[in-house]
Amino acid sequence: MTLMSLQRALADFAAEREWEQFHTPKNLVMALAGESGELVEIFQWLTPEQSDRVMQDGGRAVQVREEMADVLAYLLRLADVLDVDLEQALTEKIEKNRLKYPVHLARGKADKYTQLGG
Amino acid sequence: MTLMSLQRALADFAAEREWEQFHTPKNLVMALAGESGELVEIFQWLTPEQSDRVMQDGGRAVQVREEMADVLAYLLRLADVLDVDLEQALTEKIEKNRLKYPVHLARGKADKYTQLGG
Amino acid sequence: MTLMSLQRALADFAAEREWEQFHTPKNLVMALAGESGELVEIFQWLTPEQSDRVMQDGGRAVQVREEMADVLAYLLRLADVLDVDLEQALTEKIEKNRLKYPVHLARGKADKYTQLGG
Amino acid sequence: MTLMSLQRALADFAAEREWEQFHTPKNLVMALAGESGELVEIFQWLTPEQSDRVMQDGGRAVQVREEMADVLAYLLRLADVLDVDLEQALTEKIEKNRLKYPVHLARGKADKYTQLGG
Repeated sequence: MTLMSLQRALADFAAEREWEQFHTPKNLVMALAGESGELVEIFQWLTPEQSDRVMQDGGRAVQVREEMADVLAYLLRLADVLDVDLEQALTEKIEKNRLKYPVHLARGKADKYTQLGG
Repeated sequence: MTLMSLQRALADFAAEREWEQFHTPKNLVMALAGESGELVEIFQWLTPEQSDRVMQDGGRAVQVREEMADVLAYLLRLADVLDVDLEQALTEKIEKNRLKYPVHLARGKADKYTQLGG
Repeated sequence: MTLMSLQRALADFAAEREWEQFHTPKNLVMALAGESGELVEIFQWLTPEQSDRVMQDGGRAVQVREEMADVLAYLLRLADVLDVDLEQALTEKIEKNRLKYPVHLARGKADKYTQLGG
Repeated sequence: MTLMSLQRALADFAAEREWEQFHTPKNLVMALAGESGELVEIFQWLTPEQSDRVMQDGGRAVQVREEMADVLAYLLRLADVLDVDLEQALTEKIEKNRLKYPVHLARGKADKYTQLGG
């Protein structure tokens, strides 16, 4: 399935259940934050190395996958109610970041672009 | 572009800048949470009605769109490093939710499935 | 109990269980974000009016109170490991905000200080 | 200052600016999540060891302290509008956790209490 067909499937899912009344942009943003909070909870006590191996633990792998799906679900619902073309928005963002983070300045650095010497 | 080609573009973007060292699952989950926090900040003082009209304000519309792109970007980076097929994960989640939230029980209710009478 | 004695009680609680190894600043910040995500989940589908009455529902009142306690607990653990005097930090922040948000400019407005005319 | 006097100072601050209209529980929970997201962003690319030394960097130390103050501020505003006694709530939570995490079972483990053998 493409991102757009998933977006439509989720819109239909909500419409069938008359959930549009709950899906204001404000509420959907909260739901997105709640789901990303659940992802954070899975990783909070793991060392970076343990986090690299998180998918080797069957139970956790299922959890991680489901929380990631939930984040995407609410992001797509938000894109739907706000009429945002997510793929287009991300494509543009990547182009913008190419200018903000030129390879020769950004290589190996986690600095924000405002702190990269030029 | 498809979700997978965006995922690859982002992986290349990170590799060119030698950012893989920062992109542990743990750190990417934090970055995702940080970006969803920025989305929350845009909406925190808006009434539900104001949140419905958020894209009518040009400045805010740009911000919302960019933060949504950022959330998707980190979610795709996470999918890449954890080798999760996001579209597949969401498709499965929708099927699962069809069983948890049958239309006749869930209609018009924001309750969690554990609280729906059956 | 004062904030400082709670902070010490939590430090002792962690030390007795040899949990200091998990309580790096990075991990504690994640735990704080996770708990605030749980608070968000309680409120995400409520209207503003329903959110005003949240404590009238006994079950939810208990939940809200516990999540708020959890947020404070991790904030105090973070203050402990970073040696931050939280009460002092907040006192200073209030003074700073008095200058950023003068009553005659900020009255009735949810704008950020950078957008208040002067 | 005590926690309660800080809570009152923040309530007065909001009242003087006629901000109570924005301070619904729902909105305050979002503001709390937004501020904890800003804390997360400071730490997201740091290794655990770098996070231990975060206060040695003057600029970051100021930021961390201010974001922590902001989290506490919104938590206290929320306690105020919901009429929750935060110190009492945390005292009770600590007692509850003493039962859930007995020293001999929880020592050196980051497991949730549901996963501790007994």
